[in-house]
Amino acid sequence: MGTAFDDTSRSRQPHRVAIPPAKPFLQTLKSNLKETLFPDDPFRELKKQPSASRKLVLGLQYFIPILEWAPRYTFAFFRADLVAGITIASLAVPQGISYAQLASLPPIVGLYSSFVPPLVYAMLGSSRDVAVGTVAVASLLISTMLGKEVSPVDNPKLYFQLAVTATFFAGVFEASLGFLRLGFIVDFLSHATIVGFMSGAATVVCLQQLKGILGLVHFTHETDIVSVMRSIFTQTHQWRWESGILGCCFLFFLLTTRYFSKRKSYFFWINAMAPLTSVVLGSVLVYFTHAEKHGVQVIGNLKKGLNPLSITDLAFGSPHLMVAIKTGIITGIIALAEGVAVGRSFAQYKNYHIDGNKEMIAFGTMNIVGSLTSCYLTSGPFSRTAVNYNAGCKTAVSNIVMAVAVMFTLLFLTPLFHYTPLVVLSSIIMAAMLGLIDYEAAFHLWKVDKYDFAVCLGAYVGVVFGSVETGLVIAVAISLVRMLLFLARPKTGLLGNIPNSMIYRSMDQYPNAESVPGVMILQIDAPVYFANANYLRERISRWIDEEEDKLKSTGGPSLQFVILDMTSIGNIDTSGISMLEEVKKNTDRKELKLVLANPRSEVIKKLDKSQFIKTIGQEWIYLTVAEAVAACNYMLHTCNPKHVTTAETNGQDSNV
Amino acid sequence: MGTAFDDTSRSRQPHRVAIPPAKPFLQTLKSNLKETLFPDDPFRELKKQPSASRKLVLGLQYFIPILEWAPRYTFAFFRADLVAGITIASLAVPQGISYAQLASLPPIVGLYSSFVPPLVYAMLGSSRDVAVGTVAVASLLISTMLGKEVSPVDNPKLYFQLAVTATFFAGVFEASLGFLRLGFIVDFLSHATIVGFMSGAATVVCLQQLKGILGLVHFTHETDIVSVMRSIFTQTHQWRWESGILGCCFLFFLLTTRYFSKRKSYFFWINAMAPLTSVVLGSVLVYFTHAEKHGVQVIGNLKKGLNPLSITDLAFGSPHLMVAIKTGIITGIIALAEGVAVGRSFAQYKNYHIDGNKEMIAFGTMNIVGSLTSCYLTSGPFSRTAVNYNAGCKTAVSNIVMAVAVMFTLLFLTPLFHYTPLVVLSSIIMAAMLGLIDYEAAFHLWKVDKYDFAVCLGAYVGVVFGSVETGLVIAVAISLVRMLLFLARPKTGLLGNIPNSMIYRSMDQYPNAESVPGVMILQIDAPVYFANANYLRERISRWIDEEEDKLKSTGGPSLQFVILDMTSIGNIDTSGISMLEEVKKNTDRKELKLVLANPRSEVIKKLDKSQFIKTIGQEWIYLTVAEAVAACNYMLHTCNPKHVTTAETNGQDSNV
Repeated sequence: MGTAFDDTSRSRQPHRVAIPPAKPFLQTLKSNLKETLFPDDPFRELKKQPSASRKLVLGLQYFIPILEWAPRYTFAFFRADLVAGITIASLAVPQGISYAQLASLPPIVGLYSSFVPPLVYAMLGSSRDVAVGTVAVASLLISTMLGKEVSPVDNPKLYFQLAVTATFFAGVFEASLGFLRLGFIVDFLSHATIVGFMSGAATVVCLQQLKGILGLVHFTHETDIVSVMRSIFTQTHQWRWESGILGCCFLFFLLTTRYFSKRKSYFFWINAMAPLTSVVLGSVLVYFTHAEKHGVQVIGNLKKGLNPLSITDLAFGSPHLMVAIKTGIITGIIALAEGVAVGRSFAQYKNYHIDGNKEMIAFGTMNIVGSLTSCYLTSGPFSRTAVNYNAGCKTAVSNIVMAVAVMFTLLFLTPLFHYTPLVVLSSIIMAAMLGLIDYEAAFHLWKVDKYDFAVCLGAYVGVVFGSVETGLVIAVAISLVRMLLFLARPKTGLLGNIPNSMIYRSMDQYPNAESVPGVMILQIDAPVYFANANYLRERISRWIDEEEDKLKSTGGPSLQFVILDMTSIGNIDTSGISMLEEVKKNTDRKELKLVLANPRSEVIKKLDKSQFIKTIGQEWIYLTVAEAVAACNYMLHTCNPKHVTTAETNGQDSNV
Repeated sequence: MGTAFDDTSRSRQPHRVAIPPAKPFLQTLKSNLKETLFPDDPFRELKKQPSASRKLVLGLQYFIPILEWAPRYTFAFFRADLVAGITIASLAVPQGISYAQLASLPPIVGLYSSFVPPLVYAMLGSSRDVAVGTVAVASLLISTMLGKEVSPVDNPKLYFQLAVTATFFAGVFEASLGFLRLGFIVDFLSHATIVGFMSGAATVVCLQQLKGILGLVHFTHETDIVSVMRSIFTQTHQWRWESGILGCCFLFFLLTTRYFSKRKSYFFWINAMAPLTSVVLGSVLVYFTHAEKHGVQVIGNLKKGLNPLSITDLAFGSPHLMVAIKTGIITGIIALAEGVAVGRSFAQYKNYHIDGNKEMIAFGTMNIVGSLTSCYLTSGPFSRTAVNYNAGCKTAVSNIVMAVAVMFTLLFLTPLFHYTPLVVLSSIIMAAMLGLIDYEAAFHLWKVDKYDFAVCLGAYVGVVFGSVETGLVIAVAISLVRMLLFLARPKTGLLGNIPNSMIYRSMDQYPNAESVPGVMILQIDAPVYFANANYLRERISRWIDEEEDKLKSTGGPSLQFVILDMTSIGNIDTSGISMLEEVKKNTDRKELKLVLANPRSEVIKKLDKSQFIKTIGQEWIYLTVAEAVAACNYMLHTCNPKHVTTAETNGQDSNV
């Protein structure tokens, strides 16, 4: 086979490398922008429609998904959604109250936040499974970031105003990301970052709950483990055993129910009902034992009635506005990342598609509307969504059912929560958080990719020992450094011939690959940009030097050709082209011939425009490494008598 | 040939994809670190030596290059270096005074800075051509950054202290970059950034010279073009025509000499001597006409004597310390980038090698020593180095000669500069800067790479309309966004068979490439990381959908196989592996078979560790696209009777 190939390559012209025709600049820009911002081509269906009215309907359906699926809604769907909606409502009420406490907001705000936002999401969201509600990590972030500026204890009114203002900006930020089609920014929070960050945040939230479980009144405002531990162990005399025992009992109860429901998936409702059961049990217990007089703190009075408007509470003129904006943007992106990731995961289970940008608009709108109606930041929390999915929800109607149930609670049932002990809420949060510490995922990262593990660990350690923001910054920084390092220090390696084939592969990966005498084949594994141009120039010259040293010491035939395999060079910039020009000068000085193999479309276009093709000579650019090697062997064979025997022998060895 | 291949692939096992054995974690880490930080393997020679004393000598020579070349220094070298040294001294004196004015420092400091730092560089530098001295852009930066904090007019002592403190930190920063082997950070200033930034800075410096040429006393402290123009045109009544005419004459003289010296390279000395000639002419003219009494400002008294020590001037306890540190770091990296780039360019001309990290240590040390001896920031300016090169310098001894000449000036000749008019210094700076506005390079960037042009333009506009720092931040940000976009939106494309070969190439680049019925071959052009995993998942599923739509509309055979060509995927992380797992689920659902071709070393290792190879089946991973296609065709052929004819015909068509 090899011989046949050699014959043909000697007798006829090898395949030419095509230089695609230059496209007008604006056309290239347009297609690049389209690929960057509209990779999913969302209006594909729309374009196919001939009539304008049909287009309008499709367009409206695109922006308001409920218009699309509502006409197909059936009674069977409703039955499923009703069950799911009531199930998640039973989780939403205690969770709402708990997380509001975590955000240092009045408990009733947590209930408000489970009423309006789910209704908005049901109109605009494209997920069928996401159950809307407040999320633990964002709640904690709000309390730490705003708490530094304004004390929620001393100035609860201003604190509340800042919280809704932050929610407003979170909404605006999320919606603008969606409108500007910049959803991919969320992708920069990698899986590893999220695992580490969530586990860290869950650890921190758990530690915070020790306050409630131990019945402490004074507690540190810091979230790092050192401050929290110091705060706990300097006030051992303040620990309340009544509170502690109650807390441990409920925690045990909640963890046990979760254990069983994980064993058998049709027991999921045990887990779903457990928080509400705990609340009821706890309240009844306190009511009959009057434990509130023995150190067990209770929620107290909750105002009856639906969400009051909070437009006048948006503190645009406040001196703390910048803090509110910063809090909004950071919590907004964290909440968004969780919501979008959760939505995507469940969509995959059920095999339907979620448009990230549309989801962002939905989350953003629901937070903007929420901020006007006394709600704080909401998203699609994992725990509630998982329960919704397990309860068999079919559409976003389950969110409407939940909202109606919460409305009912707000209107009639709030007095029932008067005696609910705070320690039960702490147990509920703690149980939920313990499930988020994903050590198995971390172990998997360690096994598969050490660098991802470092990202994950960085996020975890940053959150637990520093602050939530520190952890996030560390993780994103490590992830970006990794990508930049990949570009700044691309892999280079020698290729050799796989015996009995015309295939050339890395000699590191395929130890049986054989080098071709007199020819060095070098592969570069990344686009050539300014960030790596200098490195590559030095590395290539070192490869050549080392190869020449080696050949000299083994007494082999001297080096004559350097083939650059450009298959993996996806793009090049002007610094990269200068680098190639310098490599060419360098090889010329050493009397070596530089040969290019398989330059790609973008690369060959730029090499052409910068006249480098003329410098190197069109005849030294080949479509494949095999053809380049064949041409080199032919040259060695015919033009350089002293090499004839070696080249000939090798041609037989490596190609047949 | 194709038939032969098909036969063999049916009759015997195709080549196996090798999974390299897992290396211990620490070993991988060590080799990665070595490749990142020591890509040039600087101690290669050292390791080869058997004796310890020889190793010590080589080590010393590595850190102090003069020890290496001094023993080989000859008289012929000295003759050349003497001529070059005197030539650059004649440039150094007027330039030193001018740039010190630009930095709002006393003119004598410019002369000091051409005495001590060149001596230090001559010991430590590895370039034979770099001529050390102050640089225009860094001088301007010092004056704008420090001038905001402390007025050089009202408080010259404190301003000088901050300037030497900034120089000290610049030196420490540069040297630490070198010691920590982080020289590659300089590479992140791309060629395009530097072209735009330098042109912008040159424009700004030129505009600043209008103050001197028009003889204005009050002038804006801002550097942007709008403020400068406003400042000039609101004081038209203050313009001094004597100064203006003198300035224009000297500018014309300097530009003419440069024009001629560019025409014939042996006239370079006309250009080199022109500044000193201008200074002498200007001084004589002022002395005889007493023009200093008619609005022509002169330098005035210069203190005689060598550099005083300035250790006590280092303002570590000052409240302005942070500004000094910030100024030091920014000006340090800018000066370093210019110096290293200049050194590298000239080393290439003469075909010797420069170690970037060693250069950084040399530049850093010379600035640290300089800051202790009343010098401000120095580097290797392009203009002076070019003159040095043209004057035929052989080694860094030309720097020593220059330093001695400047010492002589400091000791005996300073009174001669009393009558030197400032307008001549402005003309010298302006002439030098006009040569730095590199519109040809910008045009080349536009022609070859629009994105690089955008970077260049961003830097230019940022510097000219904003500030020097703004321009730098804009350019670095655009460059980084480009690299991140490359990773976030990698190119994907369909491959087809090049007629009469077994080669598969992008159908975009090679319009004659033919698709294989029933098989879709998809190529991904970047490493698969978290930043693009989501995009790729959606893009791949869109490719599949579009292909199926197309086949349906043309009535071709339905899609059966999806081959992913992984040649260009240099690395993958855990997010990327999840993406592949989801693609696999997706293809399974559509009853398509997913086939991988040529996964690379890093990728196959991770696919193996994460069990993905088991999921997809080792038998569906091929070494080349051709083998994968052959296997698919074979399957279509034998297992799927309805496709026999099509596949058979195509097998003949595309492979023979």
